[in-house]
Amino acid sequence: TLPDQEILIGKMLVQRDFEDVALLLESLPLEQRLETWNSIPVDKRIDVLVVMRRDPRESLLEEMSLNDLDALFENIEPDELVELSESLPTRIVARALQAMDSKQQKFFEVTQQYADEHAGRWINQGFLTLPQNAKVRDALRLLRRDIAKYIDAVFLVDRLGHFIAAVRVSAVIGAPDHVPLSDLDEDDFATITAEDDAFDSALKVQKSGFSALPVINAKGVLIGRLDIGTASEIVNEDYERKMMASAGMDEDEDLFSPVISSAKNRAVWLGINLLTAFAASWFIGLFEATLQQVVTLAVLMPIVASMGGIAGSQTLTLVIRGLALGQVSTANRKALLSKEVRVGGLNGVIWALVIGIVVAFWFSSPLIGLVISLAILMNIVSAAFVGVLIPVALDKLKLDPALSGSVILTTVTDIVGFVAFLGLGALILT
Amino acid sequence: TLPDQEILIGKMLVQRDFEDVALLLESLPLEQRLETWNSIPVDKRIDVLVVMRRDPRESLLEEMSLNDLDALFENIEPDELVELSESLPTRIVARALQAMDSKQQKFFEVTQQYADEHAGRWINQGFLTLPQNAKVRDALRLLRRDIAKYIDAVFLVDRLGHFIAAVRVSAVIGAPDHVPLSDLDEDDFATITAEDDAFDSALKVQKSGFSALPVINAKGVLIGRLDIGTASEIVNEDYERKMMASAGMDEDEDLFSPVISSAKNRAVWLGINLLTAFAASWFIGLFEATLQQVVTLAVLMPIVASMGGIAGSQTLTLVIRGLALGQVSTANRKALLSKEVRVGGLNGVIWALVIGIVVAFWFSSPLIGLVISLAILMNIVSAAFVGVLIPVALDKLKLDPALSGSVILTTVTDIVGFVAFLGLGALILT
Repeated sequence: TLPDQEILIGKMLVQRDFEDVALLLESLPLEQRLETWNSIPVDKRIDVLVVMRRDPRESLLEEMSLNDLDALFENIEPDELVELSESLPTRIVARALQAMDSKQQKFFEVTQQYADEHAGRWINQGFLTLPQNAKVRDALRLLRRDIAKYIDAVFLVDRLGHFIAAVRVSAVIGAPDHVPLSDLDEDDFATITAEDDAFDSALKVQKSGFSALPVINAKGVLIGRLDIGTASEIVNEDYERKMMASAGMDEDEDLFSPVISSAKNRAVWLGINLLTAFAASWFIGLFEATLQQVVTLAVLMPIVASMGGIAGSQTLTLVIRGLALGQVSTANRKALLSKEVRVGGLNGVIWALVIGIVVAFWFSSPLIGLVISLAILMNIVSAAFVGVLIPVALDKLKLDPALSGSVILTTVTDIVGFVAFLGLGALILT
Repeated sequence: TLPDQEILIGKMLVQRDFEDVALLLESLPLEQRLETWNSIPVDKRIDVLVVMRRDPRESLLEEMSLNDLDALFENIEPDELVELSESLPTRIVARALQAMDSKQQKFFEVTQQYADEHAGRWINQGFLTLPQNAKVRDALRLLRRDIAKYIDAVFLVDRLGHFIAAVRVSAVIGAPDHVPLSDLDEDDFATITAEDDAFDSALKVQKSGFSALPVINAKGVLIGRLDIGTASEIVNEDYERKMMASAGMDEDEDLFSPVISSAKNRAVWLGINLLTAFAASWFIGLFEATLQQVVTLAVLMPIVASMGGIAGSQTLTLVIRGLALGQVSTANRKALLSKEVRVGGLNGVIWALVIGIVVAFWFSSPLIGLVISLAILMNIVSAAFVGVLIPVALDKLKLDPALSGSVILTTVTDIVGFVAFLGLGALILT
C-alpha cells in the first residue's frame, strides 16, 4: 500500500539506495508511481531520475511543469545531465548548462561529441591528476580533500595534458613525502580511448582490478575516467538489451508503459514475424495437393519445424555470446562451423531415428516414419549451419544479431523444415 | 596462427589481462588450445584458470598429470581454490589445503559452508579490520602495508568480531592521527549476510558506490567481503546463464566442447521440446477429418501458432527481467497481468483484422478469414495471460523461469492456437 511504500522509500533515501527507489518506482502502475514520486524530496529527485530506465523516467518528467523542471535541474552535475539530456526538453538542458561553471560546461560538451556506443560518452570528472614530476606529498594533499568515489589511483599527465602513468593510492600512502610519484607508477596501466566501444571498455574496467581507468582522446589527452560503477551499469544494460532484443523489445521498455505505446512498440515485431509466417505458409501452400492426399503430413508438420528451430537457436545463442565476448573471429569461424555442423549431424541422426520410429508406429506407416526422419535430419543440420552463418553475417554488417538473428533463423528452419518434409512426402508417399 | 597467438598471449600476461588470455584460450579448438596453454609460464596458469569457464578449464586440467597438478596448486590462494575446487580431483584439493596456513584453511572451510548461490561462497579475505576504538593512526598503519585491490573503506569490529561500522579510506587520509575512527564512520553502511542470494548481493555491491561491502554471518560476525570485481563476475555470469538457459544450454558450455559431449548436453533440451511438439501434433490429430475437408487450414496453421508464440515471449521476457530485478511482486502482479492482457487484446484485435483480411482475399473465403481472425485474437490474449502467470508460478516454485519458461509458454500457445483455429474451422467451415 502507498503509505508503506513511502516509508520504505524514506528508508532507501537515507541509505542513498537510489537504484532501489528507481526499481520500486518502475514497478508501480502509472498513477501510484506519480503519487509516490511526489512524496520524494526535491533534492533527491535527480539522483533517482539518473538511475531510472528511459521510458518510466519520461513518464515522470512528462507530468512536471517547465517551471518545476527548471527548479529541479538548476544544480545538476554535468555527468548527470549527460544521462538525462535525451529525456529533457532542449530548453531545460540549455538552462541547466547556463547554471554550470565554464569547466563543467566544457566537460558536458566533450561528452556530447561521442555517441552512446562510445566510451567517451560515459566518462566522469571525479579523478585526480598531477603533473608527471609531482611528489608523494602533492598526491597526499589531493587525497586529503573530499575525493570522489571509486578512486584507487592518481593519474600523471604531461604539460599538454597527455596521460603518462597511474600511481596506486595505496603506494602513495606508504611512501615518504619527497619520493617522485613517477618512481611508484604502475607498469602498463590500461587506458581507454574515447572512441572505443562502450561495452568493451566497460568490461575492460571490470576486469582491470582497478576502480576506474583513464579515458584519453585520439591525441592521448586525458579527458576523464570510466569508473567501475558506471562500467557495471553499461555492462548490465547491454545484457538486458540483448535479452529484451531477443523478443523484439527495447531495453527501456517500462513494466507499466501505457497500453497503447506498449502495444505499438511490440506491434512492429509481431508484424515482422507475421511476414515470415506468411512466407512459411506460402511454401506449405505449394504442397496443398500432397496434404490433401496425406493429411497425416499436416498433423506432423509442427514437429519438423520445431526441432529445427530449437537446434538452430542453441547454435545461434552460443555464437551470439561468442561474438559479444570477441571470441568468434575469422581465425576460428571455420572450425566453429564444422564443430556445430557435426553436433547437428549427431543430434540430427539420433532424433531422426527416435522420431521416425515413434511416427512409424503411431501411424502404422514405416514410409511416413522414413519421410519425417529424413526431414528432421536435414533441418537440424541446416539449422546448425545457419545458426553460425546468420549471426556472423549480421555482425559483419554491423547489425545486432541479438535482435534479428532469431527471426531470420526461424524463417529459414520453418521453410527448410516444411519444404523438406512435404517435398519428401510428395516424392515418397504419393 | 600459433606463434602470433603466443606473442599476443605474452603481451596479455605482461599486462596481467588474464581474462583476455582465458577468452582467447576458450576461442581455440581443442588441440590448438592445449598447445597454446603449454606455452604459458607455470606461475601464471592459476590466474588464467580461475577466470576460465568450467568446461574449457576442465578440458585443460584433464590433460595434466597428477604430479603437474600438484606442482601447480601448491601455492594457491584460498579464494582461488574456492573457484577451482569443483574442477579438481579431491586429492589435489586436499593437498593444496595442506600447503596453506591455518588461517587460510579456516577461510576456505568457511566459504565451503555456503552454496554457489549464496554470497558467502564468493567472499575474499583482502579487507582491513580494526577494533572499534582504533584511531586514525592505526588505520594509516594498516593502509601503508601492501593492501589488496578494491579497498576504499576500513571495517570496524567489536571484540567478538561483529561488524560495527565502516570508514572511508579518503576520510582517514584527511584526518588527524589521534581522531577515533568511530567519529568518521559512514551512516548506515550496507552489509551483506552470507546466506543472501549471490546475484542480489552482487548487484548491491555494484550499486553501493563502494568497491566492496562487508559480509557477515548469521550472528553478525564479519567473515569476509564481496568486492566489486567478484560482484561483476557474478552478475555477468548470471546474465550469460539466463541467455544460455533460454536455449536450454549451460553457462559453462564451451565454444569448442568435444562434439559428443556438446551433442549430449543439447539433446536433453531437444528431447523436452520434442515431447511438447508431439503434444501439439496429438491435438492437431484430433482434427484430421476437418483438415481433410479444408486443407487450407493446414496451410495457415503455423501463422496462428507463431503469432501467439511471439506475443507470449514478449510478455514472458518483460516479466522474467522484472522478476530478476525484484520488480514483480504480489503487490503489482494483478496490475501487471491486467496491463499485459490489455496490450495483448489491442495487438490481438489489430493483427486479427490484418490477418483476417489478407487471408480472406488470398483464399477468396471470408469465412476462413473470420476463423483465423478469431483464433489469432484468442491466442494472443491467452499468450499475454500465460506470459505473466508462467514465470510468476515458476519463480514461486523456486524454478528458473529463464530456463523452462519459454518451453512451457510455446506448448501452451501452440496448443491453444491449433485447437482454437482447427476447432473454429470445424464449427464454421464444415
